[in-house]
Amino acid sequence: MSDYPSIVLEQAVNQMASLPGVGRRTALRLVLHLLRQSDAEVEAFSNAFTRLKHDVVYCRECHNISDTEICPICGSTRRDHSTICVVENVQDVMSIENTGQYNGVYHVLGGVISPMEGIGPKEIEIDSLIDRVSKGDIDEIILALPTTMEGDTTNFYIYRRLQNAGLKEMPKLSQIARGVAVGNQLEYTDEITLGRSIVNRIAFNG
Amino acid sequence: MSDYPSIVLEQAVNQMASLPGVGRRTALRLVLHLLRQSDAEVEAFSNAFTRLKHDVVYCRECHNISDTEICPICGSTRRDHSTICVVENVQDVMSIENTGQYNGVYHVLGGVISPMEGIGPKEIEIDSLIDRVSKGDIDEIILALPTTMEGDTTNFYIYRRLQNAGLKEMPKLSQIARGVAVGNQLEYTDEITLGRSIVNRIAFNG
Repeated sequence: MSDYPSIVLEQAVNQMASLPGVGRRTALRLVLHLLRQSDAEVEAFSNAFTRLKHDVVYCRECHNISDTEICPICGSTRRDHSTICVVENVQDVMSIENTGQYNGVYHVLGGVISPMEGIGPKEIEIDSLIDRVSKGDIDEIILALPTTMEGDTTNFYIYRRLQNAGLKEMPKLSQIARGVAVGNQLEYTDEITLGRSIVNRIAFNG
Repeated sequence: MSDYPSIVLEQAVNQMASLPGVGRRTALRLVLHLLRQSDAEVEAFSNAFTRLKHDVVYCRECHNISDTEICPICGSTRRDHSTICVVENVQDVMSIENTGQYNGVYHVLGGVISPMEGIGPKEIEIDSLIDRVSKGDIDEIILALPTTMEGDTTNFYIYRRLQNAGLKEMPKLSQIARGVAVGNQLEYTDEITLGRSIVNRIAFNG
């Protein structure tokens, strides 16, 4: 016999353990927790995921996850539609929204260029970004991609594509500030970050 | 608007975050992982839990999780049915089975007595254990409950119940050995465990 006293239990554990970062021991614990819930609760748990997969759409403009063809941010008249913040994924939109510091719109690439993982420019939403900008009325593009080799490559690729897009007017291109995180001790900051934070120092105005 | 760009996404995250030890950030990561899987894969994921809840039964003898009315262990003619190992839960059966050191049968209490959590003797499978023993033919009961106050209380309660059950012959009652774990340094072993391991020392036979 298998390690599990029941085949349906084993199948449920296998499914739970297919989630990233969930080991078999944790999966068993989570499944046994579900088993202690009522039929209705387990039903609601299961349905949430099939319903998500079935009902969710991606915003036609920014490719963020949405319930509607145009997401609430792209559909809002109170947001600045001339500023586009380019991010890797949905979590990044939520993180920036939570800061309360940004009032423009987004463009969700759905990944960054990574030859190691076989992700080229065609696999992510770069063409649609260039299309959006080509229609005009964009004043600024803020690149808010991860501060990794892949993020930097993608930033540079977007820069080159915009230059070659034959735009009437090139929008301002910026990237998020890099430096020592607020609240960090210098001695625990990595050398590259600290080095760059000195090279890219900004004026102190009291 | 809520923190989430989509209501169905938020509902899926809520369900995932209802699992013990899964925070909202992890839940979002897991749900977005599911969203990247195929329709069939998400369907299989969801169905595994409703199917588990629907199909799983508890063994009539030992109360372990099972696909059949009598679990494979209780149904096996190659196991020693005169020895019952009393455990708290399903995971404990799996852990003991994995050691390969036990060939008897089990009795799964489904918890231990815990006045703090409102779990009394009636909430767990103690009556059915006494019934099983009263039918006779049990030589030994091994108490393999957690080495906690609740486990000790439950051990003692079972002992008293067996004494008062009017059995023709009292089975041998034992509990799992407690002491310094194999591979542990004495200096890192807690005082109570170390103290008891000296009081309850056993003969050394070369």
